[in-house]
Amino acid sequence: MIADRLIEQVVKYKNHTVAGLDPRIDYIPAYIMEEARMKHKGFAESVAEAFFMYNKELIDSIYDIVPAVKPQIAFYEQFGTAGISCFEKTCDYARAKGLLVIGDVKRGDIGSTAEAYSEAYLGGSQSTMNTDFITVNPYLGTDSLEPFMKNCDKNDKGLFILVKTSNKSSGDIQDLISEGKTIYEHVADMVVRLGEKHIGSSGYSFVGAVVGATYREEGAKLRRRMKNNYFLVPGYGAQGGTAEDVVDCFNEDGLGALVNSSRGIIAAYKSKEYADRFTEREFGAAARKAAISMRDAINNELAKNKKIAW
Amino acid sequence: MIADRLIEQVVKYKNHTVAGLDPRIDYIPAYIMEEARMKHKGFAESVAEAFFMYNKELIDSIYDIVPAVKPQIAFYEQFGTAGISCFEKTCDYARAKGLLVIGDVKRGDIGSTAEAYSEAYLGGSQSTMNTDFITVNPYLGTDSLEPFMKNCDKNDKGLFILVKTSNKSSGDIQDLISEGKTIYEHVADMVVRLGEKHIGSSGYSFVGAVVGATYREEGAKLRRRMKNNYFLVPGYGAQGGTAEDVVDCFNEDGLGALVNSSRGIIAAYKSKEYADRFTEREFGAAARKAAISMRDAINNELAKNKKIAW
Repeated sequence: MIADRLIEQVVKYKNHTVAGLDPRIDYIPAYIMEEARMKHKGFAESVAEAFFMYNKELIDSIYDIVPAVKPQIAFYEQFGTAGISCFEKTCDYARAKGLLVIGDVKRGDIGSTAEAYSEAYLGGSQSTMNTDFITVNPYLGTDSLEPFMKNCDKNDKGLFILVKTSNKSSGDIQDLISEGKTIYEHVADMVVRLGEKHIGSSGYSFVGAVVGATYREEGAKLRRRMKNNYFLVPGYGAQGGTAEDVVDCFNEDGLGALVNSSRGIIAAYKSKEYADRFTEREFGAAARKAAISMRDAINNELAKNKKIAW
Repeated sequence: MIADRLIEQVVKYKNHTVAGLDPRIDYIPAYIMEEARMKHKGFAESVAEAFFMYNKELIDSIYDIVPAVKPQIAFYEQFGTAGISCFEKTCDYARAKGLLVIGDVKRGDIGSTAEAYSEAYLGGSQSTMNTDFITVNPYLGTDSLEPFMKNCDKNDKGLFILVKTSNKSSGDIQDLISEGKTIYEHVADMVVRLGEKHIGSSGYSFVGAVVGATYREEGAKLRRRMKNNYFLVPGYGAQGGTAEDVVDCFNEDGLGALVNSSRGIIAAYKSKEYADRFTEREFGAAARKAAISMRDAINNELAKNKKIAW
């Protein structure tokens, strides 16, 4: 079951970090952009080519230390057909390297439309964009999630349902209180209900939750509310979340949260911390260094709190 | 301004109907599938080719009677790169024929990710998937909507924000009550606030709302709550909504709602009503007939209720 496989990978690499593969033109080293431009005349095509070259080297640099990668599809979709082709190739390449792939797509729709999305990402060998997990939006209710659940069950895939997001305005809807609890707690309870029949031998369900690192108290409350659901935790690093902030998203077993960092890892070579130690041609090595540093920061914080999985 | 242009088109064709371009393999006539298979060996490529041939003839058959089309991207995304290429070509072809294009993408994300989505669809000549409107999901709050608002303002585009959706479980989150009003009313008020600075000479804003035809009372309540926001109304026809059900989604001026039908129009030739009058080679003519019939049913119902725009 996918949750068990995820935990196997986490334990194997002793790492709760996910690298967000969110390529942007200003991250790409000039020599890669030039090479891509030689291959393709079209703007979108050359950018997509550059993104794939960049992603490939990033994956080669970290596949043996992180359990999973999370490509955010918006950064690919922006470049239309060429971008989607790069997304497909990135997912395939990462999975071939043994990484789990979390497609951060935040889709949400109803009936046959939800089925089409589910086939697109969770259809297994039927999918053109074959991922292991995707993120989904709960606003349309349980029947909008069922087509995704069905493919998770059939094709050994998983979901992370948006519960409490990391942005400033996340409270506009999510923090409203109804029947004595917030909307995000209502969604959390929906996640628990959906997931409870799909718990693996690890004690975790294939239905997980997105819980932002930037809301520490809320994360702690949600952790108590949903013991058997894995959390995907965005907002670490560039968005302000620290290792201290995310420690409450873990269970006492030292498991239960995957912490994502995108810019902090994939563009480490441009950061204050690493820019003087790595040239642009060493962006892969800088990413590896940053991923190790993040791994260690989270593991140290977990050890301090006696939450140790190995 | 886009809302004014939309109304010009509605009045020009005396039609509140939008045709949902949601192609499915089982809608496509055999002779089109065969022709597409001759051109492309790959499965996804031949399906996408067939979808475009189908869409093109549908557009040719209705572009002079309906104001807009609404391609649902999931049905294209399911076929990966090839499908997205078909979506791009469909949007371009429809716009070239003078139709407004509502990209039913229901995207919703934060910060630079929302910006990337916004560029993908609402970037104007910058976009590879150039639409006039898109649908968006409000669960992440106002700051997740701002990048879309910005491009609407800059590039003369519009939004339909999910408020009350047409599916059975839409109430799971949307009907919860907080501070004396439902969550969908909270979202409605957010839509009003976001839209009020962007009202055209027609009295309508470029920020609209998605309100399902299947919840008549809720539609009527929302219409009173948000006078200046156009409604995109799914759920007509196959999902059970009738002309009577949608009439309360209109304002007294006889405007304010675009009613979508997908299967009922684009696969009319396969329906009970039209199957004996049209062969599969006449699917375009059947679609035109169905679109006219829907136009008339809604106009008659509006006339009965003295809501007349022309």
